[in-house]
Amino acid sequence: MLPAGSYSSPALALVVQKFGGTSVGSIDRIRNVARRAIAAQKAGNDVVVIVSAMSGETNRLLGLAHEASKLPEAREMDVIASTGEQVSAALTAMAIHAEGGQARSLLGHQVKILTDGAFTKARIKTIEGSKIFSTLKKGQIAVVAGFQGVDEHGDITTLGRGGSDTTAVAVAAAIGADACEIYTDVDGVYTTDPNICPSARKINRISYEEMLELASLGAKVLQIRSVEIAMKYGVPVHVRTSFSDAEGTWVTGEDKSLEDVVVAGVAYDKNEARVHVVGVDDKPGVVAELFGSMAEKNFSVDMIIQNVSKTAQDRADVTFTLAKTDLARAKPAIEEVAKRLGSNEVRYDEEVVKVSIVGLGMRSHAGIAARMFRILAEEGINIQAISTSEIKVSCLIHAKYTELAVRALHDGFGLSKEASA
Amino acid sequence: MLPAGSYSSPALALVVQKFGGTSVGSIDRIRNVARRAIAAQKAGNDVVVIVSAMSGETNRLLGLAHEASKLPEAREMDVIASTGEQVSAALTAMAIHAEGGQARSLLGHQVKILTDGAFTKARIKTIEGSKIFSTLKKGQIAVVAGFQGVDEHGDITTLGRGGSDTTAVAVAAAIGADACEIYTDVDGVYTTDPNICPSARKINRISYEEMLELASLGAKVLQIRSVEIAMKYGVPVHVRTSFSDAEGTWVTGEDKSLEDVVVAGVAYDKNEARVHVVGVDDKPGVVAELFGSMAEKNFSVDMIIQNVSKTAQDRADVTFTLAKTDLARAKPAIEEVAKRLGSNEVRYDEEVVKVSIVGLGMRSHAGIAARMFRILAEEGINIQAISTSEIKVSCLIHAKYTELAVRALHDGFGLSKEASA
Repeated sequence: MLPAGSYSSPALALVVQKFGGTSVGSIDRIRNVARRAIAAQKAGNDVVVIVSAMSGETNRLLGLAHEASKLPEAREMDVIASTGEQVSAALTAMAIHAEGGQARSLLGHQVKILTDGAFTKARIKTIEGSKIFSTLKKGQIAVVAGFQGVDEHGDITTLGRGGSDTTAVAVAAAIGADACEIYTDVDGVYTTDPNICPSARKINRISYEEMLELASLGAKVLQIRSVEIAMKYGVPVHVRTSFSDAEGTWVTGEDKSLEDVVVAGVAYDKNEARVHVVGVDDKPGVVAELFGSMAEKNFSVDMIIQNVSKTAQDRADVTFTLAKTDLARAKPAIEEVAKRLGSNEVRYDEEVVKVSIVGLGMRSHAGIAARMFRILAEEGINIQAISTSEIKVSCLIHAKYTELAVRALHDGFGLSKEASA
Repeated sequence: MLPAGSYSSPALALVVQKFGGTSVGSIDRIRNVARRAIAAQKAGNDVVVIVSAMSGETNRLLGLAHEASKLPEAREMDVIASTGEQVSAALTAMAIHAEGGQARSLLGHQVKILTDGAFTKARIKTIEGSKIFSTLKKGQIAVVAGFQGVDEHGDITTLGRGGSDTTAVAVAAAIGADACEIYTDVDGVYTTDPNICPSARKINRISYEEMLELASLGAKVLQIRSVEIAMKYGVPVHVRTSFSDAEGTWVTGEDKSLEDVVVAGVAYDKNEARVHVVGVDDKPGVVAELFGSMAEKNFSVDMIIQNVSKTAQDRADVTFTLAKTDLARAKPAIEEVAKRLGSNEVRYDEEVVKVSIVGLGMRSHAGIAARMFRILAEEGINIQAISTSEIKVSCLIHAKYTELAVRALHDGFGLSKEASA
C-alpha cells in the first residue's frame, strides 16, 4: 500500500494511518480517507485509522464552553472537546462501510487509552491492544478517535492540541505496527518553511533526533510528544499528504543514508521574548535564584547570557528568553525576583526571533556554528544570543531579519533545490 | 424547592430534574437550568440533573451521518448521536460552576447505565448508583447525559427519541429519588390538546395508568417507556415548564383524590391507517393467520373488526388499523396473506383518526362508552371501529372530524374550564 519511493518500504502487515482535521474536514474528504484505508487493507495490511476532529469543530466546541463559563473547568472541557473526534471516528467508520469496507469506531475509553489525570494536556500511560486486535481479526478496519483518553477514574481526558499525532504513534507503538502514516495537508517535512524560502525542499528521510529539534524549534508538521514516543519505541513515521499518493517524509532511526547530511533543516521560532535584567548583584547563586524562581512557576527559560554590567560596578546583567505567550504571566515573578537580587530595571523585547540549524552531521563536523555566524554576519545581522546542542545551533536575532536569515542559512548550508540538484 | 401547590410536596431530600432540548437550547437557557438546579440544592436537596441534547443538535448529527452513508449502521449512529447529550451535560456542569455551584458531568458509560445491545432503541437493564452518590456526597450536582447508555461490550447505545425522559425516571428509580421533575416547554399534561381545544385544562394530578394510555394515544408530553418505569417503581413524576416556577402535573400512583374523575383526558392519534381485507374464507383460523403474519413481521395491529361479507356468501371481511408509518412496508405482507386466505381485494384508508377518552373512573362507572358514542352521534360523526380497555374507549372516525370530535368529547365529559370552574 505504501507507494514505493526513494526509501523502499518493507512488506507491511500492520499499519496505522492518522488523518488530521483538514483531511476529515468534510464528508467528501472523509470518503477519501475511507477509500485510502480500504486500499491499504486490500493491499494486504491490517489497518488502524486514527482521526482528528473535523477542522473547525474543536474551536466551535471550545467556543461553546467559553460561552457557558469564563473559566470552564478542565475536566468538563475534555468531555466537550472529545466529542469532535468521537463524531469523526463514527463518520469515518460509516464512510468505510458505504465504500464497501468493514470498520468499527473505538473511543479512548473503549480502546482503552489510559492517561494521567492532567485534563486538557494528559499524557498517555498505557494502551490496551486487545479491542484493536479483536477488531482487526474480524477483518474490520479499527477507527480510533484521536486526541482522547481516559484516566484511572474513567474520566475523559484529552492530550492537548495536535494530540491525535501522539495517539497515532502511541497506538502504533502499543500494537507493534510496522509504520505510522501521518496524513496531513502538506506533503512532508521541508528543509525550511517554504512560505518564506521558495527553494525549500521536501526531506525524504530524517532522524527522530533531528525531527524532534525541528519540531521544538517551530516546525509544525508533527507534535513534539509524538516524535518522542516514536523515537522511544522506534516507530517508523511517514509524514505525507492526504491529497495524493506521493511519498512524503520518513522519520526513522539513524542509519548510514543519513550520515552525509550536515544540516538537515533550518527552523525559526517567533514565540520568543527577550528579558534583560539590568544590574543584579554580581555574586554566586544569583543566577540560580533567578532561574529557580522561573522553574518553580513553570516558566520554561531558553537562552541565557550573563555578563558584567556596563552601567555599574559589582553588578551583572542577565539576559534570557522565554515563550512570548508566557511573558505577561511571568512579568510579576521576574520583577519580584529581580528587585530581590538588587536590580532596578528589567527590559523586555518581543521583536526577536530564534533561527536554528539542525543536523546529525554536526556531531562529526567541526565549525558548523562558526559558519552559521559568518553567514548571518555577511547579511549584516547582529546576533543577540546563542544556544547550542549536539545537533543544533540557535541564534536570537531581530525579528525583522527572519526571512533574510532563514534564506541565507538555507542557501549557505546547501539545502536549496539548486544546490542539491 | 418544589413550590407548594394544590398537591403538597413532601420534604424532599433527593430529586432528579430532567431538562429537554428546548430547555438547554442555548447557553442562556443552560444558565437558567444551572440556576434552577442550584436553587434546588440550596433548598436542601441532593440534586441530579439529566439533560437532553441542545434542540436541533441531534438532527444536525444524524444529518451528518446520513451524508456519510445512505444506510449508516446503528452502532455508529449511536456513537455520533450520544455526543449531543455529552456536550450539554458538560456545558450544564460548567454553567453551574459559573453560577457559583459545584457540579460534575457523568456520561452513560461512567454512571454506568447498562442497556441491551439494541442500538438506536436500547432498553435500560441496570443503573449503578455509586458514581452519582459519590458525586452528591461531595456536595456536587450530578449532571447525567440523557438518552445514552452502554451495552455489556462497552459499546455506546441510545434509547431512542425522547429517551432522556426514560433516563431520568430510571435514574430516579435506581437511586430512590423522592421525585423526578420533567422540565419541558409546556406547563404540564392537559385534558386534551390545547391547540385544537381552547378550553383544555392543565391536569394537576394523574395516575400512571391514565398517563400511559394518554401517551400511547398521542399525547407527546412524556415518553411511554418512562411512564412504564415510573409506574413499575412508583417514582412520582412532576411534568412542568422550565420557563416559570408554576406547578405542573404530578404523575403518581392512584389515591383517593383521583377517584372522582371519570374521564381524565381526551386524546387523538392521527398515525392510524385502516386496512379492509375483503372476502376472506369464513372459517376458523383465518383471522389468526392474518394477524399472526402481521405480528411475525413486527407490525403492531390495533383495532380489529370481522364481519360477514356484504359482497359474497361464505366470505368475511376483516378490518384493522395499524400505524400509518408502517403501512408502506406492511402492504406486501398484507396482500400476500390476504390472497392466501381467498381475498381478492384489500382497501386502505389513511383519512382516519382515533379519538379516545381515558379515565380510571371508567372502572366503576357504567355507560361511559355509550355516552361517548352518543356524543359523537349527536355531532353526526360515524364510528368506523371501536376498541376499549379497562380505562379507555377509542373510536376510529374520519379524519376531517378530529377537532369537532375532540371538542365535543372534552365538553361532553365535563373537562372544559367552564365546566370544572
